[in-house]
Amino acid sequence: MFGKLNEVKVLRDPIHEYIHIEYQVIWDCLNSPEFQRLRRIHQLGATHQVYHAAEHSRFSHSLGVYEIVRRMVNEVEGLKEALSEEEQIEVMLAGMLHDIGHGPFSHSFESVLDFNHETMGALILMGESTIHDVLVSHHPDLPKNIVDILQHKHSNPILNQVVSGQLDADRMDYLLRDAYFTGTSYGTFDLERVLRTLRLHDDKLVVKESGVHTIEDYIMARYHMYWQVYYHPVSRSFETILVRFFKRLVVLNAVDPGISKRFAMFGPFFHEGYPTLKEHFELDEAACLYAFTLARKESDEILKDLGTRLMDRRLFEYAEVESPQQIAAQRQNVIDAGLDPEYYFALDMAVQRPYSPYQEKENSLIWILNTKNEIKELSQASVLVGAIVRGENKKDEKMYFPRETAK
Amino acid sequence: MFGKLNEVKVLRDPIHEYIHIEYQVIWDCLNSPEFQRLRRIHQLGATHQVYHAAEHSRFSHSLGVYEIVRRMVNEVEGLKEALSEEEQIEVMLAGMLHDIGHGPFSHSFESVLDFNHETMGALILMGESTIHDVLVSHHPDLPKNIVDILQHKHSNPILNQVVSGQLDADRMDYLLRDAYFTGTSYGTFDLERVLRTLRLHDDKLVVKESGVHTIEDYIMARYHMYWQVYYHPVSRSFETILVRFFKRLVVLNAVDPGISKRFAMFGPFFHEGYPTLKEHFELDEAACLYAFTLARKESDEILKDLGTRLMDRRLFEYAEVESPQQIAAQRQNVIDAGLDPEYYFALDMAVQRPYSPYQEKENSLIWILNTKNEIKELSQASVLVGAIVRGENKKDEKMYFPRETAK
Amino acid sequence: MFGKLNEVKVLRDPIHEYIHIEYQVIWDCLNSPEFQRLRRIHQLGATHQVYHAAEHSRFSHSLGVYEIVRRMVNEVEGLKEALSEEEQIEVMLAGMLHDIGHGPFSHSFESVLDFNHETMGALILMGESTIHDVLVSHHPDLPKNIVDILQHKHSNPILNQVVSGQLDADRMDYLLRDAYFTGTSYGTFDLERVLRTLRLHDDKLVVKESGVHTIEDYIMARYHMYWQVYYHPVSRSFETILVRFFKRLVVLNAVDPGISKRFAMFGPFFHEGYPTLKEHFELDEAACLYAFTLARKESDEILKDLGTRLMDRRLFEYAEVESPQQIAAQRQNVIDAGLDPEYYFALDMAVQRPYSPYQEKENSLIWILNTKNEIKELSQASVLVGAIVRGENKKDEKMYFPRETAK
Amino acid sequence: MFGKLNEVKVLRDPIHEYIHIEYQVIWDCLNSPEFQRLRRIHQLGATHQVYHAAEHSRFSHSLGVYEIVRRMVNEVEGLKEALSEEEQIEVMLAGMLHDIGHGPFSHSFESVLDFNHETMGALILMGESTIHDVLVSHHPDLPKNIVDILQHKHSNPILNQVVSGQLDADRMDYLLRDAYFTGTSYGTFDLERVLRTLRLHDDKLVVKESGVHTIEDYIMARYHMYWQVYYHPVSRSFETILVRFFKRLVVLNAVDPGISKRFAMFGPFFHEGYPTLKEHFELDEAACLYAFTLARKESDEILKDLGTRLMDRRLFEYAEVESPQQIAAQRQNVIDAGLDPEYYFALDMAVQRPYSPYQEKENSLIWILNTKNEIKELSQASVLVGAIVRGENKKDEKMYFPRETAK
Repeated sequence: MFGKLNEVKVLRDPIHEYIHIEYQVIWDCLNSPEFQRLRRIHQLGATHQVYHAAEHSRFSHSLGVYEIVRRMVNEVEGLKEALSEEEQIEVMLAGMLHDIGHGPFSHSFESVLDFNHETMGALILMGESTIHDVLVSHHPDLPKNIVDILQHKHSNPILNQVVSGQLDADRMDYLLRDAYFTGTSYGTFDLERVLRTLRLHDDKLVVKESGVHTIEDYIMARYHMYWQVYYHPVSRSFETILVRFFKRLVVLNAVDPGISKRFAMFGPFFHEGYPTLKEHFELDEAACLYAFTLARKESDEILKDLGTRLMDRRLFEYAEVESPQQIAAQRQNVIDAGLDPEYYFALDMAVQRPYSPYQEKENSLIWILNTKNEIKELSQASVLVGAIVRGENKKDEKMYFPRETAK
Repeated sequence: MFGKLNEVKVLRDPIHEYIHIEYQVIWDCLNSPEFQRLRRIHQLGATHQVYHAAEHSRFSHSLGVYEIVRRMVNEVEGLKEALSEEEQIEVMLAGMLHDIGHGPFSHSFESVLDFNHETMGALILMGESTIHDVLVSHHPDLPKNIVDILQHKHSNPILNQVVSGQLDADRMDYLLRDAYFTGTSYGTFDLERVLRTLRLHDDKLVVKESGVHTIEDYIMARYHMYWQVYYHPVSRSFETILVRFFKRLVVLNAVDPGISKRFAMFGPFFHEGYPTLKEHFELDEAACLYAFTLARKESDEILKDLGTRLMDRRLFEYAEVESPQQIAAQRQNVIDAGLDPEYYFALDMAVQRPYSPYQEKENSLIWILNTKNEIKELSQASVLVGAIVRGENKKDEKMYFPRETAK
Repeated sequence: MFGKLNEVKVLRDPIHEYIHIEYQVIWDCLNSPEFQRLRRIHQLGATHQVYHAAEHSRFSHSLGVYEIVRRMVNEVEGLKEALSEEEQIEVMLAGMLHDIGHGPFSHSFESVLDFNHETMGALILMGESTIHDVLVSHHPDLPKNIVDILQHKHSNPILNQVVSGQLDADRMDYLLRDAYFTGTSYGTFDLERVLRTLRLHDDKLVVKESGVHTIEDYIMARYHMYWQVYYHPVSRSFETILVRFFKRLVVLNAVDPGISKRFAMFGPFFHEGYPTLKEHFELDEAACLYAFTLARKESDEILKDLGTRLMDRRLFEYAEVESPQQIAAQRQNVIDAGLDPEYYFALDMAVQRPYSPYQEKENSLIWILNTKNEIKELSQASVLVGAIVRGENKKDEKMYFPRETAK
Repeated sequence: MFGKLNEVKVLRDPIHEYIHIEYQVIWDCLNSPEFQRLRRIHQLGATHQVYHAAEHSRFSHSLGVYEIVRRMVNEVEGLKEALSEEEQIEVMLAGMLHDIGHGPFSHSFESVLDFNHETMGALILMGESTIHDVLVSHHPDLPKNIVDILQHKHSNPILNQVVSGQLDADRMDYLLRDAYFTGTSYGTFDLERVLRTLRLHDDKLVVKESGVHTIEDYIMARYHMYWQVYYHPVSRSFETILVRFFKRLVVLNAVDPGISKRFAMFGPFFHEGYPTLKEHFELDEAACLYAFTLARKESDEILKDLGTRLMDRRLFEYAEVESPQQIAAQRQNVIDAGLDPEYYFALDMAVQRPYSPYQEKENSLIWILNTKNEIKELSQASVLVGAIVRGENKKDEKMYFPRETAK
């Protein structure tokens, strides 16, 4: 029913050796402008400000997620048989397109704008876009069904676990990929063995007991990547400035009508409601960075300074938070230096637990299947994960400020 | 004399594990806006259009070259002793800054504009730039001496061989790095052993005979990277369109005065003579890509189409050149399709020989030192390289055109 | 004082790239018959019966430990300055020679014989051996001081922590090496970063707080290697048979005086007291395996069968222990099959905790140094390790028996 | 027709991640004593005397060859369809069993004895052996057909190219494996891409033109491994002594009847004609090494000295051959030192060309298939290989002698 390419296309990839594409619809989506746009958004936002080699894009990651889903469909015992061909294609496309709604530095955007990359993704897939047309040309239900998978409400519950959960194709690709490109060894785990020990059990994706160590290793990989990479204070410093740059744009817009012309790429900041598809499409990371170049010439000192800091990597200094007195003192330093603490002072807290069974929906949990064909939730089946779940959370609270205001 | 940092700074790097920075002047250059700008230029221009993961920047590569020079200075037997501290720092800086004059897609730019990234690099180092000020603040002779190394005319002939030659820090880093990020194994060679077998012999960098196999391997790595990666026809297709986009801009400028405003980032295309330092500084890859986004809205059909093709990766098809008749026929197809062959048809030839002793200046050759303390040029010392040098050149000639014009 | 080689010798090694040897005394020890003998003993005893590629020897591992000690001495901040040249050499030699007392399948031997590889190592270093003569020829105190380090009683307390402890050169090499040769990724951790974050603090080797994640990763690597590799039930099955083969030899010796001639290589089983140095030297793994070949021709059915099983890898089956009834039933099955349960039935329990601060001597603990220059024991400093330490132990109890006796 | 296992068995392997076993007959052969014996023979004989970590066995390599054949059968386009299930199994078994006739240090044995490991392999497969019985129990023709493949005379010419040729599973595994275990990068090439570009064309295994660079890389890998690893003079030194130890045994046997008892494991040296299957089976590397231990106690000074040299790695020194005078002088030095040059002096020449189309049988050549569906022999299709084929051979001639006789 779904057309195949004359020859399987293979794309060289450092994580999976090759990405294999067999179906025409996958190939057509890959070649849509919306998907190609992901080449222009870094997977890790500001992280390459710390790990300079982590310059990979959401495009590469999306191909990687697709490939893991494709392998799961083909290699996880019993999975292929449990899915119709249409469902197989839907879940592979869901893997490939799960990040299609992202913009540059999404998390910073989302903290300023009323915007959510998942909602935007659904709008793109269901709305006026090349990718929507491509999907519909192959089957009218594809957009809806892909969105359903991404929103965990597809009628076949198996599909909802493949792309996102606690042991999903998205996380598995990004851990491996981010570890490779940062050059750290932390994110490494044994993907081959995960694939070999996954099983289908009463419509649940479960892991055979013999794979429990591999899963423990995967949980630890996540834990380490969070603290060593994703929560690194230098990235958080960059994002702190970014958020303040956006806030300043909004503030200025109320007083300077020219700004929305000079920074046309930031349209969504200048009107109520959701970004349009066109605005979203054109606002890639290149547009964002070019805007900071333009900010170098603005007369507003704050906008100019923040934009220049982002371009030239003059980031804020940071310090561990120790007491309210210390916070107040540093905030006062900023004021004494003649700077507005709205823009030049920030507090930020990171908290993470490696795996949290109590906070997850049931179908996101990791289940272990023992040799007697019973399943247990991971923290029950693993002494190691159990100990961690019952331990206290690790926290990291920091304050950020310009270096020259430290005393 | 040259200040050291309180603690050696280390930057995680997937190729060298860590980049080690010991001197304040190196650190200050790294933090200059001109050097940070290299984060916004892909090392391999259009190559990530084929090898999607090859998204690394000239920033990462420049750090890598610096690190190899640093290791050569410290690890190549006899080298450190042969250099003054100032010379050591000069050559490390030359490694780090050798690409400072690059713009986005440099080779395409250079084929349209009167522009050369090496000349531009010298202008930056000698002219009004933060990096110039930083260098001078540490020692007034640094800019001049670094430029001399990059132009092979430093008074100490040893320095001229370290950063560029046939076995230099630049090539060694990019082969390893490009192999890593493309995910191919071709560029791999044994850097450790190269460093171990390099020697100084009468002011020449030479390789001990026991290292000749390692050098053969390195020569083959280069050869394979050229054909598998650097000359890949898909990158050449992208560049073909890019060059024609730039040419179109120049043509339009003669008739449409508004274009130089709407595409202000392309200032150098709109005036005689060299780009200014400011123009060059602001024209990074982000600016370039944002310009293509702007081109989507232009009324000129050619500019609009070419820009859109670059953004959405609708590249030209290609075919092996077989005969003048075949070329003429395809050119006619383009015309028949109502397209201007100036913009929609191109011929391109790639030629490469792995190592060419006859075309190189003497101090770029690779010399082998035997156990009797005599030196021989590599193609004399290696049966393998000798055979290749005497063999015929490999060539690849292709024509490029829009897919829809093929018959 | 200690002679250096004309040129640093380098030995290619997959884990450390190169092993570097600078001192004559190290080189001479490496070339002693006692050290060369370690080539004939597998590092992991029976593990290559499961992980077929884990065929590396104690020789390779010993070189690796030496190399890590050498790097610690040279790279850990402050360490080199805190040690005299003699102490540096002593600790490097202690690393290299720490396994010199091992025999083939040591743990099985030690469970039958009154024998301990550490005691034997001291006897070799202090007694009539080439290695003793080599050491003394360089400095009369070397043997004694090396033994003191291996027994944790050297007068300089720093040295006692380098070779053995919870974060020592021995473990660091074997985790990396065993992971590499088994082909698993479990034992991987970031050795470079461990070396970079180790410090000397009041004669204690401590880890800077910024390295705590690396240490957590190392603790997990150990945990996984234990369960996935070292405690693998197939190795334990091989060892179960091996121990019974040795016991049978001892039993037969009481009734068959010829056996001590036919199995002359097993001399230590046939007399009271400790093996002599000569017996120990000649009893390598080749001798042991040749003995099993000889056993194929013995008239005693048990000796013959057990030896043949070891050679042909007809190992015992295993099952998880569930109840006393199940144990008794399987034992009865063995008897019913006409087999002596002394030789054909075994129980075996493995218990491990990743890191056990309560069971260790203080100078074996891992200490973390925070930015205020205070030290904390690892399980206090790491939320993750703390959780694990307070969690319950993981256990694995199995019974072993011939496959044909299972019902 | 051929029984499958209930569950695919997977063996962890550092080169192929996993070895996959699906058929009962493969599993049964793997568990035969003759195949298990390969664990006791190093893949690279004496090479671990130089590259200490190259301690892998013929067992591991044989599994690797099997796995590559299995992948070829399943992944090379068109191959599976061209073979019956029986032929598929035959060729996988031929890959797995191609080294079954090897003894320890085979090449040295073969230079003294009238013995050839390929002939011996055929005798084992066709004669009284467990492996013969296993094969026959699955299909009476298996032994004959496997031997036919190994001798290039199977009725289906495709099969004869898979296991041995210029681009065969045997070489592909050993290059990758030997590179991994020596720790060098030389043997690396892109196995994935070789498998992807192999095709069947008129019963010939050919490589698509797009894979020609990968094959060039493979040819270079072979070339480098030969000179850096396989022909390393230290291994050749070990083998030189080994051959002379064997010759001495033969000489002594003529005068000392007790020697054939004391060295019973060397039975084949003491009688005319071929080794028996039993002699061959029992003569593994452990037996050989134990014999050298026994030689330490012999009264014959030459046998004792040579055996001790092998055990303690007191190898012969070597020097490049320069002139007949130099050879004669060194030979005289040996005589002057009171040593017999028959045993203490040797000349040895190594010659290699990376790929030799003129010396190979047609079905061993490598063929390249171009886009017009024509095939060309590799040296015609590759400018690089063509240059090398027409270049001169590389040679290395050395003489070997005890260090103490050098002047």
